[in-house]
Amino acid sequence: MNINVAILGSTGYTGAELIRLIEAHPHFNITHLGAHSQAGKKIGEVLPGIASHIANQTLAPADAALADDIQLVFTALPHGAAAKSVKRALDKGKKVVDLSADFRHQSSQVYQQAYNVAHPHPELLTHAVYGLSEWARADIAKAQLVANPGCYPTSTLLPLIPLLRGKLIDQNPIIIDAKSGTSGAGRSAKTGLLYCEINEGLGAYGLPRHRHAWEMEEWAQGFGMQRIRVRFVPHIIPMTRGMLSTLHLTGSNTDTWHQALSQAYADEPFVRILPLGSLPSTKSVAGSNRCDIGLCVLSDTEVVVVSCIDNLLKGASGQALQNANIMFDLQESLGLSVHAQWP
Amino acid sequence: MNINVAILGSTGYTGAELIRLIEAHPHFNITHLGAHSQAGKKIGEVLPGIASHIANQTLAPADAALADDIQLVFTALPHGAAAKSVKRALDKGKKVVDLSADFRHQSSQVYQQAYNVAHPHPELLTHAVYGLSEWARADIAKAQLVANPGCYPTSTLLPLIPLLRGKLIDQNPIIIDAKSGTSGAGRSAKTGLLYCEINEGLGAYGLPRHRHAWEMEEWAQGFGMQRIRVRFVPHIIPMTRGMLSTLHLTGSNTDTWHQALSQAYADEPFVRILPLGSLPSTKSVAGSNRCDIGLCVLSDTEVVVVSCIDNLLKGASGQALQNANIMFDLQESLGLSVHAQWP
Amino acid sequence: MNINVAILGSTGYTGAELIRLIEAHPHFNITHLGAHSQAGKKIGEVLPGIASHIANQTLAPADAALADDIQLVFTALPHGAAAKSVKRALDKGKKVVDLSADFRHQSSQVYQQAYNVAHPHPELLTHAVYGLSEWARADIAKAQLVANPGCYPTSTLLPLIPLLRGKLIDQNPIIIDAKSGTSGAGRSAKTGLLYCEINEGLGAYGLPRHRHAWEMEEWAQGFGMQRIRVRFVPHIIPMTRGMLSTLHLTGSNTDTWHQALSQAYADEPFVRILPLGSLPSTKSVAGSNRCDIGLCVLSDTEVVVVSCIDNLLKGASGQALQNANIMFDLQESLGLSVHAQWP
Amino acid sequence: MNINVAILGSTGYTGAELIRLIEAHPHFNITHLGAHSQAGKKIGEVLPGIASHIANQTLAPADAALADDIQLVFTALPHGAAAKSVKRALDKGKKVVDLSADFRHQSSQVYQQAYNVAHPHPELLTHAVYGLSEWARADIAKAQLVANPGCYPTSTLLPLIPLLRGKLIDQNPIIIDAKSGTSGAGRSAKTGLLYCEINEGLGAYGLPRHRHAWEMEEWAQGFGMQRIRVRFVPHIIPMTRGMLSTLHLTGSNTDTWHQALSQAYADEPFVRILPLGSLPSTKSVAGSNRCDIGLCVLSDTEVVVVSCIDNLLKGASGQALQNANIMFDLQESLGLSVHAQWP
Repeated sequence: MNINVAILGSTGYTGAELIRLIEAHPHFNITHLGAHSQAGKKIGEVLPGIASHIANQTLAPADAALADDIQLVFTALPHGAAAKSVKRALDKGKKVVDLSADFRHQSSQVYQQAYNVAHPHPELLTHAVYGLSEWARADIAKAQLVANPGCYPTSTLLPLIPLLRGKLIDQNPIIIDAKSGTSGAGRSAKTGLLYCEINEGLGAYGLPRHRHAWEMEEWAQGFGMQRIRVRFVPHIIPMTRGMLSTLHLTGSNTDTWHQALSQAYADEPFVRILPLGSLPSTKSVAGSNRCDIGLCVLSDTEVVVVSCIDNLLKGASGQALQNANIMFDLQESLGLSVHAQWP
Repeated sequence: MNINVAILGSTGYTGAELIRLIEAHPHFNITHLGAHSQAGKKIGEVLPGIASHIANQTLAPADAALADDIQLVFTALPHGAAAKSVKRALDKGKKVVDLSADFRHQSSQVYQQAYNVAHPHPELLTHAVYGLSEWARADIAKAQLVANPGCYPTSTLLPLIPLLRGKLIDQNPIIIDAKSGTSGAGRSAKTGLLYCEINEGLGAYGLPRHRHAWEMEEWAQGFGMQRIRVRFVPHIIPMTRGMLSTLHLTGSNTDTWHQALSQAYADEPFVRILPLGSLPSTKSVAGSNRCDIGLCVLSDTEVVVVSCIDNLLKGASGQALQNANIMFDLQESLGLSVHAQWP
Repeated sequence: MNINVAILGSTGYTGAELIRLIEAHPHFNITHLGAHSQAGKKIGEVLPGIASHIANQTLAPADAALADDIQLVFTALPHGAAAKSVKRALDKGKKVVDLSADFRHQSSQVYQQAYNVAHPHPELLTHAVYGLSEWARADIAKAQLVANPGCYPTSTLLPLIPLLRGKLIDQNPIIIDAKSGTSGAGRSAKTGLLYCEINEGLGAYGLPRHRHAWEMEEWAQGFGMQRIRVRFVPHIIPMTRGMLSTLHLTGSNTDTWHQALSQAYADEPFVRILPLGSLPSTKSVAGSNRCDIGLCVLSDTEVVVVSCIDNLLKGASGQALQNANIMFDLQESLGLSVHAQWP
Repeated sequence: MNINVAILGSTGYTGAELIRLIEAHPHFNITHLGAHSQAGKKIGEVLPGIASHIANQTLAPADAALADDIQLVFTALPHGAAAKSVKRALDKGKKVVDLSADFRHQSSQVYQQAYNVAHPHPELLTHAVYGLSEWARADIAKAQLVANPGCYPTSTLLPLIPLLRGKLIDQNPIIIDAKSGTSGAGRSAKTGLLYCEINEGLGAYGLPRHRHAWEMEEWAQGFGMQRIRVRFVPHIIPMTRGMLSTLHLTGSNTDTWHQALSQAYADEPFVRILPLGSLPSTKSVAGSNRCDIGLCVLSDTEVVVVSCIDNLLKGASGQALQNANIMFDLQESLGLSVHAQWP
């Protein structure tokens, strides 16, 4: 089986990762690469890590028509811009995995609160399936449009959902202290993202309320069946890839939490629950599509849960490919590694 | 004025930093460098960053006698070993700043809980002054023995104390999510501290209860006049220096917190309260003896406070020198920079 | 087709990379993992990046017998130790790819000069094929034992060979200034390899004559048909992976050099000659099995050539797998990426 | 003695370092901070590492008049812009240390070759003294205008000059392979300088002929009394600070080279010749104004010389302050550290 694929917004960090992954995929075949400011160049000029024949493929303008034989479109565009491209692709009957935030919310009001702009296509929101793969497989399989989750929500929802479903957490708000590698900030030329200013520099940002807080709350309720509020403080870390979320949790029956997580993910190739008391490192998931989760019970009512992902893989392009595999009824792990590239 | 100084345990990271600082100090003069396994070598062979004539000074064995004309001893030794050297120095009438944990607790029982060994010299505990410079000046000035605070306690007590004194925090426990550069782990040859395993790697450690938790609780009460419990989760970060502590706080009158901190430290050269809503970065304090504190009010009852220090300076050798300046009635900031080495 | 594989010395950095690569390979199947000091543990305890069922595989002692159904053995052991394991595997009829230096030289005298020990099995030297894949395919295909090239020789021989065959270089010695990521130093717990001492640290090492100089000279002659002498100065760089070699060359007809390289590698998936004047970066090959080569003509007689590889892939485990593919008559690029993981 | 100082171009990396150094200097006192695009802001907003009262100083526009009581001006501006500011300062009778390239050449033709623009004030070239402190002290002491050397020329001329004066080098051209931390590229918001693209990335740049090649050749002749040609290949390294130059040299009497260097710098606090065979690391000079030089004799005719500096200190702001000390007849090392900040 050969499925032709377009990537719109292919010159950023998630775009680069999509190309690498799809090039190694046995059934997906890239036939269209779109870009905004870089249109007209060859992809190899913009992404020096891409080699072989695909490096010579010319970047199409953002509004170029998609060929009829393209069945699948990945949109890795800024929010707002993404919705317009998604609309055009849906209208032509393509399946779409959108890596932006544009379709992650069910209500345009929440979207507007989080992103401070009106949603360009609110009529499409109900068409989208929120693609947290492990919890939405059946819906993803039937979807024409999958909203790929944000990196912070992925790393926090995976540990939270089983605990919420088990009614084990009783605190309000839930305190989440998250740390992200710098690639999460994207490929924009800002002084504050220069090597000299990130290296040996570590700081919190996005306060008082980061956009992903809304997404976490909406889908904690959606999948965890419990309305929660989060106090979410993200930090930027001097590393390229990797995301670690520390959840400072309070609840009951804390001696059962490890088992609750272990059972929930017993058959999942991409979620690993470490032995009780072991805590994960970002290095152990770098280059893989895995989420590693560890927990340490502090007392009868207190637990620290730590989860790690590669923000560009399970936090973006890897989960996007996982979702695409589901949408086309392929083996879910095709083209994705469970092992890290280590060191 | 010329004061002769000994540094015992001079070959680790805090020792190296002490030498650099004291060499630039107008009144302190290093005449004795002690070491354990490296005794007999020249300091310049062991610390390649040390140059000039002092590089040729030979490292004395740990138990070498201290010359009569030495007035001040810094002990930068592992806990347990430090107490024995401190005892010998005190017996010879020297003033001592101890950078280990051996004299940070008032009770030998607490010490034993935190460090899992019996205290070698419990009779000396009452002689020691806990040297959080900004809060203990008068006692430090009269002390023969100053217990230099740990890095994590320094970075968390400085923001906590004014808030506790103002009875502004009402939560229990207080949640502290801290992040430390790798130099905090010291100069020991462990696989897990290799460049290849730290770089791009980020993880939590020290759970369920890190040793510094006891120290924070003891001195939050000592200076903050309030008994608290902390839930403290430290992380190791891929950077050499720098420590950032994120305090997830709950209380009342949160609109007054910024002023409480600003007033407490208005005249302090080494504590800077950022404008309300601004959050600090480790890069802004690297190479300085400063603690930068920022806070963001999330709601009527919720505040995030972030504090940054250079763990080897305000978190260790810098504060040690600040304390020594106080002990000898010198200008407190002598030999210490308020400015960061940036970038 | 399913070929059972053993990896001896599986707990170091090249071992970790072999496991990751072979796990994704469609025909090779790991059934034996050997180790020295870590024998008896599960591989997942020692290599936290390895997940899934293989993480539970127990490490066999170094001298454990290899099962009859194992057809291929990778030895990723220190030199000296490797030769003994290679001998045992050959005696049982296995094919072997040896990643150590033990079989890279044709003469035991040269080996002794370079490694300062007598060769444990000089009688096997003539059995080995030096596995610089692009230049020794036919011999590799027939070999029972392939000596996998060193990282520095791979990165320097690939650009040198076509230039030597074309008689374009006339200088003596050839000056090679090489820079390696820290993973090249292996996973040994030495103070000088700690994060805090490598980060922001850069230095030359291995002088007056690094072991790989002999290997470069032997195979420059072997494949380049010209006896040369190298002045080789390697440096260690604060990064985990990546190797860049700068060749400061002098010769004739320098306007033809780019074409000579381009023609030599026109059909090679894993060697890319950049456009004339473009120079490569290690980042563009990280995670790939590619060697990128750029050159800049300075004058009628002077050329700078720069070549980049991922030292753990084309410089070690990647080329080892490429060679194994050739030995088993599989598609040479199976399980190897031409694209970098970027950023 | 109190000398008022202006810094023009104070918001870049060398400007930041000048402020830090001068703030700790006992006789220099900053009363004027100039900037281009950031004029009107407070310096503390632009340079977060600057604290204390000076952080509140407002940045003056580039063309603001300099007060009469200012005696010394540091210009840390881009080439071209610097010359105009230098002219205005000289006209008002100030002493000037210019950190740009504008006055490093004696001839406007050479300047134009190297920088591709006509010199804005060629009439001033003969007024400038090239400020390689160790070799031009007498002239610097009398100068009104000192052209502060470039980082690469400083790191290469210091080892070359004694060898050239001794007629020990006989090769042509001299091969210099240099490696610089990223701060050398300045504080400009370019994609290629982002953390994610520099980290784990290493590449050569500036070919076929970097601007500093002309400067090296001019002053090798000026101080070394010998006309040379250099083949200079610079690389950018994933670290913030530090510069290492590897000189691949050929000549005669190579057993005397170490002594020639040792004698030349025997009394210099800021140049250290390592024991024969020892090679320096950038880490050992970071934060210091020192240049460390090591050499390894390869044969009767071949030597590798490696030199290390902190590119922002001995390679820029540190040497600028050293020169200012000389110009005002102060102790040359005032406000400068011989020790590194390590780790």
